[in-house]
Amino acid sequence: MRDVSVIGIGITKFGELWEKSLRELGLETGLAAISDAGITSKDIDALYIGNMAAGSTLQQEHVSALIADYCGLTNLNVPATRVEAASASGGLAIRQAYMAIAGGFIDIAVVGGAEKMTDVSDSESSYTVSMGSDEQWESQAGATFASLHAMIAQSHMNEYGTSREELSAVSEKNHYHASLNPMAQFPFQVSGEAVSNSGMVSSPLRMLDCAPNSDGAAAVVLCATDKAKKFKKESIRIIGSGQASDTLSLHHRKYLNRLPAIGIAAKRAFKSCGKKTKDLDLVEVHDNFTITEIIALEEIGIFKRGKAASMGFKGETRLGGKIAVNTSGGLKARGHAPGATGIAQVVEIVQQLRGEAGKRQIKGAKIGLAENHGGTAATAVVHILEAD
Amino acid sequence: MRDVSVIGIGITKFGELWEKSLRELGLETGLAAISDAGITSKDIDALYIGNMAAGSTLQQEHVSALIADYCGLTNLNVPATRVEAASASGGLAIRQAYMAIAGGFIDIAVVGGAEKMTDVSDSESSYTVSMGSDEQWESQAGATFASLHAMIAQSHMNEYGTSREELSAVSEKNHYHASLNPMAQFPFQVSGEAVSNSGMVSSPLRMLDCAPNSDGAAAVVLCATDKAKKFKKESIRIIGSGQASDTLSLHHRKYLNRLPAIGIAAKRAFKSCGKKTKDLDLVEVHDNFTITEIIALEEIGIFKRGKAASMGFKGETRLGGKIAVNTSGGLKARGHAPGATGIAQVVEIVQQLRGEAGKRQIKGAKIGLAENHGGTAATAVVHILEAD
Repeated sequence: MRDVSVIGIGITKFGELWEKSLRELGLETGLAAISDAGITSKDIDALYIGNMAAGSTLQQEHVSALIADYCGLTNLNVPATRVEAASASGGLAIRQAYMAIAGGFIDIAVVGGAEKMTDVSDSESSYTVSMGSDEQWESQAGATFASLHAMIAQSHMNEYGTSREELSAVSEKNHYHASLNPMAQFPFQVSGEAVSNSGMVSSPLRMLDCAPNSDGAAAVVLCATDKAKKFKKESIRIIGSGQASDTLSLHHRKYLNRLPAIGIAAKRAFKSCGKKTKDLDLVEVHDNFTITEIIALEEIGIFKRGKAASMGFKGETRLGGKIAVNTSGGLKARGHAPGATGIAQVVEIVQQLRGEAGKRQIKGAKIGLAENHGGTAATAVVHILEAD
Repeated sequence: MRDVSVIGIGITKFGELWEKSLRELGLETGLAAISDAGITSKDIDALYIGNMAAGSTLQQEHVSALIADYCGLTNLNVPATRVEAASASGGLAIRQAYMAIAGGFIDIAVVGGAEKMTDVSDSESSYTVSMGSDEQWESQAGATFASLHAMIAQSHMNEYGTSREELSAVSEKNHYHASLNPMAQFPFQVSGEAVSNSGMVSSPLRMLDCAPNSDGAAAVVLCATDKAKKFKKESIRIIGSGQASDTLSLHHRKYLNRLPAIGIAAKRAFKSCGKKTKDLDLVEVHDNFTITEIIALEEIGIFKRGKAASMGFKGETRLGGKIAVNTSGGLKARGHAPGATGIAQVVEIVQQLRGEAGKRQIKGAKIGLAENHGGTAATAVVHILEAD
C-alpha cells in the first residue's frame, strides 16, 4: 500500500451562516483546499463528502452529487461519494479516500465535510443531532443527546470522582484556545466559574459544557505521497488510520463511563504506524460535551483511566502543557458542524504541523492525532499525521 | 491489487414489510448472506451499509452502527460504514467494500442495503425519493421525481420516435421475469395494453411505467479471491467496477434524453477488466421508470442510441432474447428499496452465474453486469461479475 499525504486544506468559520447554502459552503472550502494544494480540478480523481443531516435539515440527500455539481467536477464525471456516520461522517470520509489512494485506485481526492444545522429551529436541530443515537430505544423514549452524555458524565463522576470544576476546566481551556483561532465560532474566553454557573441542560451538563450545532465546512486534498512532490505545499503524511464500532444504544454497554470504540480505533491507528501516545505533540478530540474530551483522552491512552480530568484541571492539556488538546478550540469553541468536524480536526493538525497555526502554534510540532466519533461513540475514527 | 469475489448472498422479498423494522431487515439478509458463504461473524473485517432515507423516513441516521449493533458485530468493534447516493447507495457500498479488499486493507466484508419506504405516507415516501434530485432547483420548484423522468421520456420520444408501446414492453417484460422470481414484490404478469392504459402519473409515464417505493434488504459477502477457496460457495469474481457523476439537476445537462454518467461508469468498469458488451450474458439495469431501462441500455452500449426501445419491443431483452435484461423483474417488478436495490441486482447476477436462478435461469451464464444509479443518474455505479 502507498503512503498518503494531505497537500491542501480549507475551512470556513463555523457559526450561524444563514447567508450561505450547503453547496456554497462546500464550494468555498473545496476551492480553498485545491488552491492551497496548487492543483486544478483536472487533477482530482474522486470527491468524498462527509455529511450527517442534509436529508433532515434541507430535504436533500445525494449531497455528493450536489457538491460535485456545484464545484464543476461533473464535467469530468468525477466519482463522488457521501459517507455518513453521524458526527463521525467527516473523519470517515477521510478514511474512505485514504483507502482508495493507499490501495492504488486513485492518486488525488478532495474530501469535504459540510453541514447546515441552523436553517431549522433549535428543537429540530437538536432532534437531528439525536438521530446519531438509537431512535427506537433512546430518542423516541425521550433521551436527548445531552441527557445520554449526562448519564455518561454522572457515571464518570461517581466512579472516578470527576468534579464540576474539572468539567468546567475543559470548556475554559477550549475557549482559551479558540480565542487564538480566528476561524473559531466562539473566539472568546470564558472562566471556569462561568461554565459552572451556566444554565443547566441535563445534570451535570450545563450550557457551556455543550458544543453548539453549527453550520460550517472543511476540506482537505489527499494525494499519494509519491505524487505529492510536484505540488507546492509541504506534504503532511497520514501515517495511521483506525475505525471501530460500538453498540448504538448506551444501555447495551458494559460501562457507562467508557467509550471503548475510541480506544480500539486509536489502537488500530497506532498499530498501523508503530507510534505511541508519547510520540504525539497534539491531539484534537471530539469534545461534543466536556465529559467526552476527558473520556477520549483516557481511551486513547494519553492519561490513565480516571486521571484525564485532574490532569486537564492542572493545565496539562493546555497549550504549553504536557500535551496540547484541541488547540483549534475543539467542538466546544471552534464549533461543531457534524459532517465537517472530523475534517476540521485534520485541518487544525495540518496547520500545526506546517507551522501555520499563528498565535496557537506549538513549536516544532511533528505528530498529531485526530479523534472523531458519532453518536455516543458507536462509530469512532482516528487518524495520526506526521510532518515529512 | 487483489481480485475480489462474492461468496455469499441474501435477500428479502421486497414490498410493504410493515411487520419488519430496518434493523430486522438488515439482520435477516446479513445472516442469510453469511450463512450462504459459510463464514461466521468472527471472519468479518468490515460492514458497509447502503441506505438512502432512514433519516427522513425513520428519524435515524448512523444506520451503519444500528445494523452492526443488531447483528452483534460491535462485540468485535467491526468498522461499519454507511454510504449514500440516493438509489445508488447499494451499488456504491459494494464499490467501497470492493476497494477496501482489493487494496489489501481487509479480507472479508459484508455489504448490506436496507430501506423502509412504507412506514410513512405515500406522499412522504414520494417526497423522500425526490431528495435524490436537486431540492433547491427541482423538488422545491414542484418537479416530482416522476415528472423529471417524464421530461426525459418526452425528449427521448421526440428525438428517437420511442413509442408508448415500446415503453409498455419494458414493464410487460419485467413483470414476466418477476413472475419467475419468488422473491419479487409483484410476481405476476401484466400485458403491454394494461401498462398503456394504467393511470397517468406524469405524461407520458403511467402507473405501470413506475417502480414502487418498497421496503426491503439485500446483502452480499465479499472476500479476497485468494482467500475465498476455503469457504463453501463457488466464488463469483467482481472483474470490473466503475463510478461516475453528473449534474444533480437536469437543466444543467446538454441532452435531456441521455444519462451519460451511466455510460462513463460502464466504460470505466469495462476498462478495468478488458471485457466488451458482447461478452455479457445478462444485465440488471436501474429501471426506476421504463424509459430509464431503455436509456441505460443505450448508454452501456448494448444497443445503439435510439434502438433499445425497438429491440426490447421485439423481445431481444427478454429471457431467451439477444441479452436478458432484468431477469429479477427489475426495480419495476422485483421492487425498489433504494439502499438495497444496487445490492439486489448483484444478488440476481450471482444467482444466475451460480446456476441457482430457478425458472428464470439463463443456461450457461458466465458474465453479468449491474447498473445502479441515483437521482436522474447524477451518480452511476457499474459492476461486472464473472463465474470463476
